[in-house]
Amino acid sequence: MTPYEIIAQKRDGQTLSDEAITFFIREYLNGGVKDYQMAAWLMAVYFQGLNDAETYALTRSYIDSGEVIDLSDLPGVKVDKHSTGGVGDKISIVLAPLVASCGVPVPMISGRGLGHTGGTLDKLEAIPGFQTQLSVNQFKQLLRQIGVAMIGQTDTIVPADKRIYALRDVTATVESIPLITASIMSKKIAEGIDALVLDVKVGNGAFMADIQKARKLARKLIQVGKAFGKQVHASLTNMNQPLGRAIGNWLEVVECLEVMQGEGPADVVELTVHLAAHMVVLGKQAATYAEATALCRHQLANGAAFEKFLQLVAAQGGDTNFLEKPDQYPAATHHYIVKAPITGYIQALATREIGLAAVQLGAGRLRKEDPVDPAAGIHMHVKIGDHITAGTPLFTLYTNKSTVIEEVNQKLLAAVTIGETPAKPEPLILEEMASE
Amino acid sequence: MTPYEIIAQKRDGQTLSDEAITFFIREYLNGGVKDYQMAAWLMAVYFQGLNDAETYALTRSYIDSGEVIDLSDLPGVKVDKHSTGGVGDKISIVLAPLVASCGVPVPMISGRGLGHTGGTLDKLEAIPGFQTQLSVNQFKQLLRQIGVAMIGQTDTIVPADKRIYALRDVTATVESIPLITASIMSKKIAEGIDALVLDVKVGNGAFMADIQKARKLARKLIQVGKAFGKQVHASLTNMNQPLGRAIGNWLEVVECLEVMQGEGPADVVELTVHLAAHMVVLGKQAATYAEATALCRHQLANGAAFEKFLQLVAAQGGDTNFLEKPDQYPAATHHYIVKAPITGYIQALATREIGLAAVQLGAGRLRKEDPVDPAAGIHMHVKIGDHITAGTPLFTLYTNKSTVIEEVNQKLLAAVTIGETPAKPEPLILEEMASE
Repeated sequence: MTPYEIIAQKRDGQTLSDEAITFFIREYLNGGVKDYQMAAWLMAVYFQGLNDAETYALTRSYIDSGEVIDLSDLPGVKVDKHSTGGVGDKISIVLAPLVASCGVPVPMISGRGLGHTGGTLDKLEAIPGFQTQLSVNQFKQLLRQIGVAMIGQTDTIVPADKRIYALRDVTATVESIPLITASIMSKKIAEGIDALVLDVKVGNGAFMADIQKARKLARKLIQVGKAFGKQVHASLTNMNQPLGRAIGNWLEVVECLEVMQGEGPADVVELTVHLAAHMVVLGKQAATYAEATALCRHQLANGAAFEKFLQLVAAQGGDTNFLEKPDQYPAATHHYIVKAPITGYIQALATREIGLAAVQLGAGRLRKEDPVDPAAGIHMHVKIGDHITAGTPLFTLYTNKSTVIEEVNQKLLAAVTIGETPAKPEPLILEEMASE
Repeated sequence: MTPYEIIAQKRDGQTLSDEAITFFIREYLNGGVKDYQMAAWLMAVYFQGLNDAETYALTRSYIDSGEVIDLSDLPGVKVDKHSTGGVGDKISIVLAPLVASCGVPVPMISGRGLGHTGGTLDKLEAIPGFQTQLSVNQFKQLLRQIGVAMIGQTDTIVPADKRIYALRDVTATVESIPLITASIMSKKIAEGIDALVLDVKVGNGAFMADIQKARKLARKLIQVGKAFGKQVHASLTNMNQPLGRAIGNWLEVVECLEVMQGEGPADVVELTVHLAAHMVVLGKQAATYAEATALCRHQLANGAAFEKFLQLVAAQGGDTNFLEKPDQYPAATHHYIVKAPITGYIQALATREIGLAAVQLGAGRLRKEDPVDPAAGIHMHVKIGDHITAGTPLFTLYTNKSTVIEEVNQKLLAAVTIGETPAKPEPLILEEMASE
């Protein structure tokens, strides 16, 4: 068994043995498989796929490359949520404290924004002082004390995925269902969860534009979770427009505060409650989805979720003053309003392009090493279906880089389709899939 | 235009522009495209292919990465031959001096053996003192003086191919028709030829086992040659058994001496004359193939080819004494005869396995850095169609490694199919293809 043979076998569409996959990943970390051999193998996997057994073996190899957090000494069914990524997706920030406030422990390890999508860590770090790089011991202590912790991936958890993800990112091998599956599930399983809710995004702002691919990914994620003895529920949800009205790190935190205070955009509330309810059911704090939904709405309305969020922020070093008084947050230097060029209905939004526009304003990064500007972003005055009059605001831009405003203005105008007839409304929540 | 986009475009089956391919190869040499990105791109090309324009652009980029030898000041149509590689393929050693003796200049740049195939350089270097690493000036001087030179690839000619070939070799991306085409044609065009004869091997000892693929490769090679204004003739020839009876570097030189003295195995003579005749026609030293064939046979019979070979060896530093008296060459320590286990007809030979057996005896290399033993190899007492009696010799092994003999004996017995009925004879020369 040589690295060459393993690449050639996958290239030729053969099924790799457990041993071959374990060997390949282990030797990659040991230096016996080179970056260029891994890159060739990843591209072969992109074309030939991995069956369920191979995907399981890959996930297992990722997990075995590092530390596995043992949360078995904590009471309760530990449940996390993972989203495949979209624009304006701030759900985790409300959902984690909400679910914890319902009595379900939420050990959440999140990522950073990359490309057109945002990342939960960047959003949390917009809160001055908020620490996302905690040790495993601190993570467990928080879970014990307040039932929730929101941290970034540590160096000790699935280092194989960390290295391979970085390689996929520069070799155009990200968009592979088995590779996405192993990357997601290895991290989730290593963080010590018992059950998982997945938000698989579908649409022009998601990594998967069509629902067939999204279903395939959901099926694979559920299948691998099952093989590890974890219950997995997947919701396929609409990403044909940004979630909510805020895009950009601090702007999204503010929108989350609104939701936690019983207000905020309807779509953010609907999706948060939906995903949270499935977590509460998996976490055995409600018998049915209906019961869980009612509980979640109650915990939002009575301030319990917000209270838990304030506890979480304080425990992770964040300054809660800004959460109580968001107006005092240092705003971006430049505000600019993109106006509707004509009168009509908003028929479509090019979500990915809107996400990239926010990145250009400073809200995200195109390369891992780029800094992000917490104050930068976009406020959306419109959603699909709205009727607008020429000259009224479509977007407000917030940025500290005045030089990009004109270009972003043009890009955003191009990202909006305005027509004479109303758009056919699309549901936010498309399908549910779960392990038996 | 970024390396990532070029990988992703090819992955998605898009056609790359000239500019994209030129940029990608140039940046690879400059360090802007990393080995792992090239490896991912090569695997994407393996799956998605390159059209004729893309293959031309790749070949052009390879050529532009280094020196192009200008032979325009030498009189005559300069013609080379290239074989896609097989077992016992010693044709070049007879053919180059033979064609030169017919008045056609032969600027030949050859390769080394790798895997189950041998290489002309290793065979020539079995002649004590023979130098294959000559400078471009020395190469041109030899062509001027004796009309033929046989050297190895220099560092200055198509360095892009040199680096990319080494990468393909360890990433299972060798077997791609456009990549093979660019690799072969860039080297041939950079060495200053006007025309080229290709020997595209088909069969169980060739890189292409089936004739459809071989035809595709031949068509692509001819097409790219034409795009560079070079006349190309391709012969598809049988590699379902080793050529001749000798496999191993010095053993093959000895077989070539026999052919140059009017003897030697019929298949080696037939293929040498066939390919040489096409070169002589392309080189305008005969009007027709029939006339060229007669001339070549004449030059073998009258000793002119052998005389040219002795000139060549002497000019490149080789000791011609061993060519006059091959018996004085230091023989391998161990001789071992593999005997027929049963009586019957030789129906098939697993050519690749026979080649690998010769490698194991010391005649070749599995890795580039391995040394080769010039004295090691196999003499074949049988060819497909022969009737043999149990206990009579099938192969004689020559090696300085006694420990491998028993294993090689077993492998060779497994490589021979003996049956009760004669095998259907296969033609040696299968098809001809040429540019108009």
